[in-house]
Amino acid sequence: MSADTTLGTREDTALPGRLARSASAADEGTDLRTGDFDRWFADRAARHRFRVDRIPFAELDDWSFERGTGNLVHRSGRFFTVEGLHVRVGGTPAPQFPEWQQPIIVQQEVGVLGILAREFGGVLHFLMQAKMEPGNPNLLQLSPTVQATHSNYTKVHRGASVRYLDYFLRSGRGRVIADVLQSEHGSWFLRKVNRNMIVEVDEDVPPHEDFVWLTLGQIGALLRRDNVVNMDARTVLACAPDLTGETDALHSDVSLLSWFTAERSRHDVRAQRIPLAEVAGWHRGEWSINHERDHYFQVMAVSVQADSREVSHWSQPLLEPIRQGVTAFVVRRFAGVPHILVHARVEGGFLDTVELGPTVQCTPEYYDHLRGDARPAFLDLVMDADPAQVTYTAVHSEEGGRFLNAENRYLIVQADPSQVPTEPPPGYLWVTPAQLSSLLRHGHYVNVQARTLLAAINSGAASC
Amino acid sequence: MSADTTLGTREDTALPGRLARSASAADEGTDLRTGDFDRWFADRAARHRFRVDRIPFAELDDWSFERGTGNLVHRSGRFFTVEGLHVRVGGTPAPQFPEWQQPIIVQQEVGVLGILAREFGGVLHFLMQAKMEPGNPNLLQLSPTVQATHSNYTKVHRGASVRYLDYFLRSGRGRVIADVLQSEHGSWFLRKVNRNMIVEVDEDVPPHEDFVWLTLGQIGALLRRDNVVNMDARTVLACAPDLTGETDALHSDVSLLSWFTAERSRHDVRAQRIPLAEVAGWHRGEWSINHERDHYFQVMAVSVQADSREVSHWSQPLLEPIRQGVTAFVVRRFAGVPHILVHARVEGGFLDTVELGPTVQCTPEYYDHLRGDARPAFLDLVMDADPAQVTYTAVHSEEGGRFLNAENRYLIVQADPSQVPTEPPPGYLWVTPAQLSSLLRHGHYVNVQARTLLAAINSGAASC
Repeated sequence: MSADTTLGTREDTALPGRLARSASAADEGTDLRTGDFDRWFADRAARHRFRVDRIPFAELDDWSFERGTGNLVHRSGRFFTVEGLHVRVGGTPAPQFPEWQQPIIVQQEVGVLGILAREFGGVLHFLMQAKMEPGNPNLLQLSPTVQATHSNYTKVHRGASVRYLDYFLRSGRGRVIADVLQSEHGSWFLRKVNRNMIVEVDEDVPPHEDFVWLTLGQIGALLRRDNVVNMDARTVLACAPDLTGETDALHSDVSLLSWFTAERSRHDVRAQRIPLAEVAGWHRGEWSINHERDHYFQVMAVSVQADSREVSHWSQPLLEPIRQGVTAFVVRRFAGVPHILVHARVEGGFLDTVELGPTVQCTPEYYDHLRGDARPAFLDLVMDADPAQVTYTAVHSEEGGRFLNAENRYLIVQADPSQVPTEPPPGYLWVTPAQLSSLLRHGHYVNVQARTLLAAINSGAASC
Repeated sequence: MSADTTLGTREDTALPGRLARSASAADEGTDLRTGDFDRWFADRAARHRFRVDRIPFAELDDWSFERGTGNLVHRSGRFFTVEGLHVRVGGTPAPQFPEWQQPIIVQQEVGVLGILAREFGGVLHFLMQAKMEPGNPNLLQLSPTVQATHSNYTKVHRGASVRYLDYFLRSGRGRVIADVLQSEHGSWFLRKVNRNMIVEVDEDVPPHEDFVWLTLGQIGALLRRDNVVNMDARTVLACAPDLTGETDALHSDVSLLSWFTAERSRHDVRAQRIPLAEVAGWHRGEWSINHERDHYFQVMAVSVQADSREVSHWSQPLLEPIRQGVTAFVVRRFAGVPHILVHARVEGGFLDTVELGPTVQCTPEYYDHLRGDARPAFLDLVMDADPAQVTYTAVHSEEGGRFLNAENRYLIVQADPSQVPTEPPPGYLWVTPAQLSSLLRHGHYVNVQARTLLAAINSGAASC
């Protein structure tokens, strides 16, 4: 290029409208009618043998407890490890849980979660994959075009290369719609991030029987059902640009950022890796590592037989939650504009103190014996909501490559002013979906649970 | 508020114009003409006795080398510590410096750097303070309204309370213009952030003899001179919103973010705290801790006598660079729009892999013996630039509360297409000042050296 280069605009102003059009196309796409999805999906499941068995740690291939630390490690030194974490939280006012220790998954390499987009008949479609993961309750779920750890695509396990990866890693193969490093579960992962990408191409993409082009609206229809759209697909879709174009809000963007800065500043979180063998209150058995009260989760191991993966047999540790969680946005309209009540949450594995989570994110059973202020804020509002107030409810499982049967009930609950005030308690703020989308252009603002709920909103699965 | 609350717009569209008007008012402000600044400043210096002496470590009050680790610590356990850092950098292509150890300042608490803004005669002014810092080469520099560590304002040192702090910490006392946690020197601090704030008030602010209201343009005029405006003031001013309103760019915002995400992804930085006593290649003497080749910096100690500070005498360690650094933006116009060549830099103390630094940021002497690709990119272009190409040059010192005589020469150099191509080498990208300002609404994108140069641009000190 020469000095008289033509510049472009900083923002693609046509994109929000194109996304909205795709979201409104819920009944059919270029590959199939939404009503025919189940048949296609059942066919995919039938074509893939896949069997997962619980095994004792001693039967893990290539994984073992490291001498001294007791950390659970792979002999290659890659993939991930299970270690211990000691978390101390200070700040004003004093936190409810100032200190704890727990096992944690350490996976420092950055994976790629990528969805390929293309227009068919003037409507954007997204290339989704029917993919098995050992921890999924139903094994097969709808996944991004590419879902690859760094170990995956650098061939640590000597498997096949990752299909379509080139569109995401080789610059210039398409137009980037979103590309951002986002955190994953801060209570289970230490500072894990994945690269969330949406890339649009104009060219023909070689088809494959496990992949299908769906509109945003079709994916939204599937997001209304339990355990169909996997976590990786949900987080990537949440990173799509705002499609509402809403420019009004209760708080200006700079006020929102200032509130967030104050939340980061008032929390002092020190998270220190410790040997797994030294984690207080947790005990290792032959089959699992458990909390002394059998709360939270257990670390266990599985053996996997498959023919649809890059390698056909492997074994690995998984983290299995003990009980189902509840994850909810409480929403309200102000001057007709929907707002979401977000919560600045501390999770021990976050890179930086707090991220914005849903209004409610907890495992209700652990609070059954508590009353009043000791209970999570807004939990009772969500659990006792009139069904007419619940505009979205579905059970989704979390990352099936690391978590076993990690199901959460996701809800969106419309509240009225008597239930939640305009000025909520400290740590909570009303923001618009458009504001959340703006924050999602950047990492470490919005946690993965909130991203699932935002994906439901963006795709038209939920109104708010 | 009730359900029929009136919403506001997410963006304050009047602000860029008001900032631009303040930047163009370079000759006089409500308190003084720019030409009278020196007299006012000299008067401030005369009113404050202030004396800094080098002392051996053994003469430090309340500071000592911790048994075992050798870390330099305060007896209260607060303020900061000097520890060791072991940095390993991986990635593709392989980095020039894959591994090193060094002393590092650890200061986990978040301080406040705040500038109060107010309109006088329709023009925004900023309340600046004449403040002594022991490490400033000329002791007194122009500082933000508030410059307080957490220890400061929670009274660890039992001194006076911090003047004007309430405007920044008590919500609702003014309108927030900027509020963001920004990193500081990643080669000298471990994951240090400060809260950078600009707050505008409409009310009368009680005057104080050490404080003066200046326009952005007046501050810009002072930024053209050596060592007048301190680092804390520079970083806060860099966080002001973009005042150009430029919406065109060589790369769209999403392309810029995607490039940045790729830069973060391709670098693997592991920085581990180690005991100061174990840092390889560094040696502790009675007066200082030095690198074996006497490169980089030394850790040393000073005794301070003052009557203008919250306490009137103290002693503390400081980090003293061995040589002056060079920090430069190389700029070019594309289709008439100025662009800055930024560099995604690894610094061991960054919270997250890389941040965007200036085109050149190094200490030239350490590269004198190297030729070709082993030399920092664009260093020769900057050092050999025709004076007609240099639109900004000034020496500024870094944070005088932690660094002694830490001077860098800051430059902006206009390049022509033959010197720097439109498609620069990996790790470099052309961005507009408006794009940099957008990134600066968020933390951990733009390093503190680049922020000094951006402050010079925003305030009209430099054209680009």
